[in-house]
Amino acid sequence: MKTISINPSKKEWPALMERPTFETKNLEETVTQIINEVREKGDEAVKDFSLQFHGFAPKNLWVTKEEIRNASKYLDGSLKRAMILAKKNIEKFHHQQILKEKKIVTLPGVTCWRKSLPIEKVGLYIPGGSAPLFSTLLMLAIPAKIAGCKNITITTPAQKDGNVNAAILYAAYILGIYKIYKGGGAQAIAAMAYGTQSVDKVDKIFGPGNQYVTCAKKLVNRDGVAIDMLAGPSELAVYADETCIPEFVAADLLSQAEHGADSQVILVTPKRKILDRVIEDIYRQLPFLDRKDIIEQSFLNKRFLVLNENKAFNFLNEYAPEHLIIASKNAEKLSALVKNAGSVFLGNMSPESAGDYASGTNHSLPTGGSAKTFSGVSVDSFIKKITFQKINKQGIKSIGFAVEKMSEAEGLTAHKNAIRIRMKKLKK
Amino acid sequence: MKTISINPSKKEWPALMERPTFETKNLEETVTQIINEVREKGDEAVKDFSLQFHGFAPKNLWVTKEEIRNASKYLDGSLKRAMILAKKNIEKFHHQQILKEKKIVTLPGVTCWRKSLPIEKVGLYIPGGSAPLFSTLLMLAIPAKIAGCKNITITTPAQKDGNVNAAILYAAYILGIYKIYKGGGAQAIAAMAYGTQSVDKVDKIFGPGNQYVTCAKKLVNRDGVAIDMLAGPSELAVYADETCIPEFVAADLLSQAEHGADSQVILVTPKRKILDRVIEDIYRQLPFLDRKDIIEQSFLNKRFLVLNENKAFNFLNEYAPEHLIIASKNAEKLSALVKNAGSVFLGNMSPESAGDYASGTNHSLPTGGSAKTFSGVSVDSFIKKITFQKINKQGIKSIGFAVEKMSEAEGLTAHKNAIRIRMKKLKK
Repeated sequence: MKTISINPSKKEWPALMERPTFETKNLEETVTQIINEVREKGDEAVKDFSLQFHGFAPKNLWVTKEEIRNASKYLDGSLKRAMILAKKNIEKFHHQQILKEKKIVTLPGVTCWRKSLPIEKVGLYIPGGSAPLFSTLLMLAIPAKIAGCKNITITTPAQKDGNVNAAILYAAYILGIYKIYKGGGAQAIAAMAYGTQSVDKVDKIFGPGNQYVTCAKKLVNRDGVAIDMLAGPSELAVYADETCIPEFVAADLLSQAEHGADSQVILVTPKRKILDRVIEDIYRQLPFLDRKDIIEQSFLNKRFLVLNENKAFNFLNEYAPEHLIIASKNAEKLSALVKNAGSVFLGNMSPESAGDYASGTNHSLPTGGSAKTFSGVSVDSFIKKITFQKINKQGIKSIGFAVEKMSEAEGLTAHKNAIRIRMKKLKK
Repeated sequence: MKTISINPSKKEWPALMERPTFETKNLEETVTQIINEVREKGDEAVKDFSLQFHGFAPKNLWVTKEEIRNASKYLDGSLKRAMILAKKNIEKFHHQQILKEKKIVTLPGVTCWRKSLPIEKVGLYIPGGSAPLFSTLLMLAIPAKIAGCKNITITTPAQKDGNVNAAILYAAYILGIYKIYKGGGAQAIAAMAYGTQSVDKVDKIFGPGNQYVTCAKKLVNRDGVAIDMLAGPSELAVYADETCIPEFVAADLLSQAEHGADSQVILVTPKRKILDRVIEDIYRQLPFLDRKDIIEQSFLNKRFLVLNENKAFNFLNEYAPEHLIIASKNAEKLSALVKNAGSVFLGNMSPESAGDYASGTNHSLPTGGSAKTFSGVSVDSFIKKITFQKINKQGIKSIGFAVEKMSEAEGLTAHKNAIRIRMKKLKK
């Protein structure tokens, strides 16, 4: 696939929008076996798989309260301050998502409303292998807490020394969560989905992970366990016009590409010369980055396109990127053209990094084009809305005839009977 | 399974909560074949399957505008008035679900907000076989319209005469929807999921149906097409205390049971004598109902339990019914005990029939225990919420250090670079 296209025709778009794909057939078999083993043997199976996959089995599967309280000692003061600042911003942004709806009187005597209630038991999977994603713990646990979830279980793999990463523990500590289970991979997902001797079965599972984790989430979801989403490879699209700062655009594309070899970055610009300047800047910055090799692999999936403004947004809306940066001084105006995206960053001073960590928005976002229909994780993800209705005598009188007529027309006469029997009583 | 249990112990509860299940293995093979055929041959395949399954193939797959406009002629005036009253109430209740969130300044220079945008292309499946569910069309299309969906496609099977039921057409007419495709079953779901020569591929599919439809929705969903939910057999639980009216409780249980042989009704009461009186009333009313045979079959799945108030609500929350009636004068107070349910009806004058048709709440609700994590269809089902953020120079200064520290601790130095490169520029 060409990674650079100048004014591609509409016929070429579908190929340009193709995302990296993976063979998952054998994966499903392996993961099914892991899940079945955990369902059968519980905690012991989780330990066995730790030994098998990571070369060690944690002695205690649960982190102690003391370990959680002590984590602070092992961390840099500035990192702790950073985490607390991020926590405050994420809380501030997510707090407004608790919305109280009014009771609606649809007709005299007929009152209807919705009430948001927390999902009772939630499980958060936090990757801890190559990168301990304590930021993801903040992103999941904060909306869970705001939603009112009381029973929150964290599962995360232990490090080689049998301990959980201190930054993950500290994040749990400042959030007041003390249920941390040392389990990684598909086995941890199975433990939360079905319960073990020591893990409560949860109602909904959240969190990203490697292909085993994602496959396990997919399989338990098919079996009726709710999940937040199936997180595919991460994506960033940038729309950059002549008011962008190419150096920044290059840095943003590089930052996305370091997530993994399967990440995808897209640059769309109306001007060929901007594309050229961004590429120059990429090669200037790349040598100084730690994850240079991953970035180079990821860049094999890149798409750099020249398209005029109108076509550019049509393309981007059809692609529906997880992250979209509008690198332009007119970003706010241009944002009206966005129809499908997970999270949008406006202007030259809004890098994706900011949203990944500390601005306040959530970084758990829809990938793989699912932004057309799905939203990222928010307080909404941790609640369900129950409808209530209270009808009195006057209400039954005012809607009774409509219910009778409609149920009769649908051939449901017992529905009609339930109204009629009440109407009769009222006449007495 | 015993259908009546007096004070069952907690150990007996899981068996009492079991829902009717069905073998779907062969179904998946058949439905996969149907889907593949539609993907390959499009409209022709839809026609062929109509011929094969319903004994006729509609000549024109699309209902004409004229047919939609003329539907009114074939309907009773009182049914039309009933539908218009229902429409108004449903609109009134769903209108409040459009909530505008404020822009949040998490720190000076860092502004974050969410924006609700409609899902662009939605497809509504409306069953039209044994019962033409025009009420479902109101329940789906009204929130779609309020959400701002512009591209709404309806698929519904034609009757033997090649026409779509007039009440379905009239509902579409009063809603201003003119895209109605004559297709039923799995083939209609496939047409919307993948598109045909004449059907636009949609982004999300809504609507209930028989086992073929549900299986098709499950399969296209696994392939990445969004769906509202997998509608299982319908359920009603009633909590009735000594202030209930047994005659009404009986009527409500009967009305639920007529949905299908696989429907489940549950009655929980703290008093044995209420249970007995409800049963008496059921046998008094049953002989007069058209769908007596279906009700009798469905009643094989019933659960009538005596449990004290506290245990009753624990049981009901664990079961998580689609519909819950609290048949009590204290219903509003008792409603605080509800943790999991799709839709709750409070008091003796709030039959489920009312919510099924005309009170204003939605009747597309989570079944099979998914009320623990899912909400019924609402305006939320037709939108996605995109997060936006705009950061300025001051903002980058205030969160820059936190992003740098945290990304560094997660080993993502290109993320740090994207901030650092901006911070440097600011210092110049």
